[in-house]
Amino acid sequence: MEATLAERVYNFSPGPAALPLPVLEKAQSELLALPGAGASVLEISHRSKPFGEILEKAKSDLIELLSIPDNYRVIFMQGGSRLQFSMVPMNLLRGTGQAADYILTGVWGGKARDEAVKEGDVRVVWDGKDSNYDRLPGGDLQLNVDAAYVHFTSNETIQGVQFLDEPHTSDVPLVCDASSDFLCRPLPIDRYGLIYACAQKNAGTAGVTVLIIREDLLDRCQESLPGYLNYRLHVQENSLYNTPPTFAVYLAGLVFRWLKNEVGGVANMLERNRRKSKMLYEVIDDSDDFFQGHAQQDCRSMMNVTFHLPSDELQQAFLDEASRRGLCELKGHRSVGGIRASIYNAMPIEGVELLRDLMVEFCDQNRSSH
Amino acid sequence: MEATLAERVYNFSPGPAALPLPVLEKAQSELLALPGAGASVLEISHRSKPFGEILEKAKSDLIELLSIPDNYRVIFMQGGSRLQFSMVPMNLLRGTGQAADYILTGVWGGKARDEAVKEGDVRVVWDGKDSNYDRLPGGDLQLNVDAAYVHFTSNETIQGVQFLDEPHTSDVPLVCDASSDFLCRPLPIDRYGLIYACAQKNAGTAGVTVLIIREDLLDRCQESLPGYLNYRLHVQENSLYNTPPTFAVYLAGLVFRWLKNEVGGVANMLERNRRKSKMLYEVIDDSDDFFQGHAQQDCRSMMNVTFHLPSDELQQAFLDEASRRGLCELKGHRSVGGIRASIYNAMPIEGVELLRDLMVEFCDQNRSSH
Repeated sequence: MEATLAERVYNFSPGPAALPLPVLEKAQSELLALPGAGASVLEISHRSKPFGEILEKAKSDLIELLSIPDNYRVIFMQGGSRLQFSMVPMNLLRGTGQAADYILTGVWGGKARDEAVKEGDVRVVWDGKDSNYDRLPGGDLQLNVDAAYVHFTSNETIQGVQFLDEPHTSDVPLVCDASSDFLCRPLPIDRYGLIYACAQKNAGTAGVTVLIIREDLLDRCQESLPGYLNYRLHVQENSLYNTPPTFAVYLAGLVFRWLKNEVGGVANMLERNRRKSKMLYEVIDDSDDFFQGHAQQDCRSMMNVTFHLPSDELQQAFLDEASRRGLCELKGHRSVGGIRASIYNAMPIEGVELLRDLMVEFCDQNRSSH
Repeated sequence: MEATLAERVYNFSPGPAALPLPVLEKAQSELLALPGAGASVLEISHRSKPFGEILEKAKSDLIELLSIPDNYRVIFMQGGSRLQFSMVPMNLLRGTGQAADYILTGVWGGKARDEAVKEGDVRVVWDGKDSNYDRLPGGDLQLNVDAAYVHFTSNETIQGVQFLDEPHTSDVPLVCDASSDFLCRPLPIDRYGLIYACAQKNAGTAGVTVLIIREDLLDRCQESLPGYLNYRLHVQENSLYNTPPTFAVYLAGLVFRWLKNEVGGVANMLERNRRKSKMLYEVIDDSDDFFQGHAQQDCRSMMNVTFHLPSDELQQAFLDEASRRGLCELKGHRSVGGIRASIYNAMPIEGVELLRDLMVEFCDQNRSSH
């Protein structure tokens, strides 16, 4: 096992992304036979007792981690955020006679809107595209009291902007795509109608999406919906409407347990995330514009740190040196360019320290010449 | 590792189901770091080179295993058969002005029909419910030449009936839910329009669905469909329209490789499956009605062997003794009762031999008394 451990790099991928090593080690140790089950978790029936325990433990740990109130239900689905972009309006907009409000702070919010317009009336209430999505609405936001819901993306991975406080929507249900910062901080769940998060950034591996939905909203889900696309059926059947992605649920459960027992909860996680992201943003701010951050300072993401170097040549040299030091997947998305360091919950502080050291050295060596 | 191996039972679960041990061992050995990737397959980006290779290898092995012609495309999706029950009519019926024909040989075909009627005109052209789905249509089948497609379920897991030859539909596209017998035998792919199979019986673990679709049918997929539910987009993006269930795709690839390299292809697999199922059906037929098979002899499933014992007491005693011998998950579905032995591709011959021995002994000991 040491040999394979030695092969591991620091993986700054925006998702699927790094997982906590103790989670991987646990999954590996019981991959041939889940204790007490006589078979791998990859093989056991979703209706078996061992899987039932895995599902219930994952749910109860998540409820504890986020202090989810009793009038909310937790379900696990497939299809990622993309399927949710359609399911949200199919379930919560159809038949209401209302319009849905969308806040666009980046690429993903735009994609959510693109699917919603196929299902009903949609109003874009704020769009940051004129500044290439480098900021949040702040005080600019004008919300409608008659909306079916307000949709926002709590963290935009490509641009690196993040809401650290929820938009205030009073009685209008707030719907959040939390895919890329779920569990990075405590959340006031009672201010949300629906939170959805694909797992492959902060909650596990690709193939499962976690949903937290306020019970009264299930009344909106119409019988005529395709079965798999009806939230109410998944809630009624406790995520067993069909065969759930059993292994991905198991792994999400291991991540929840790690967060609870080894990190000590989401408040501790928030402290750790602040510390990690601050390390990199301080280098950017102290670099005399050698590094230029993409996001405005007051809405910088703790999850995805995006910045540019003075030239394409320096950027490539930076990526090459990073790769030599085992710091991988740092290239920014083509629509923003530059560097993107995704430092989700599972990225160890040591990985961020190594990246910070590289940034400081690289800046010192190259600042005068640019 | 020996300790965990010793804990393994023979798992006759109808799905998720037993996986080939070499597949589990391979996945376990590289779970912390995929060779050359520096990270677990659970962590790497779906757009990374290592995952690209996994995806292409899985596709090309499947194409080779089933001799899939050039005018067919292979994609991997999420959502299981349940989502396909809706996606098939959304993509292939909407806008055609035609009706779709459904052949019902068991519970799953019925559920597919229930979703299709939400999307358009549906005709049930054969329904085996009057005999509790113990048979196939055989010569009874009257198909319509004007159908948008004909849908059938190649193997019904609950009743244990299986088509070993496809319905002849001439120019009408044949759509098959092959979830529970995919890769159990060679298939004449050119007689199909679309084949879909969730992986958790014969092709891997829960969370991924394999689709083989004839290219010309993609012309039917309308722009207005929700993005995730449009086959054309998944084909265009080569299964990367959104983040695929990377680990489940990887595991399906390992199963394809096992089938190719260790079993020697699907023709060999068919021989092995015939041998395994024959072992159990012979005991049933030689038991002087102590064991009563549910399915008629000429449509018995090689995958799910369903039978009854003379009384509930004997059935329970049989299950108890099976469990003592490490033969698990043998209880039949509540709608049929009795025993169901699911002996998919990955169930070793030794497991079936142990079950056969138990059946013979149990029959000998209890036949006279009933």
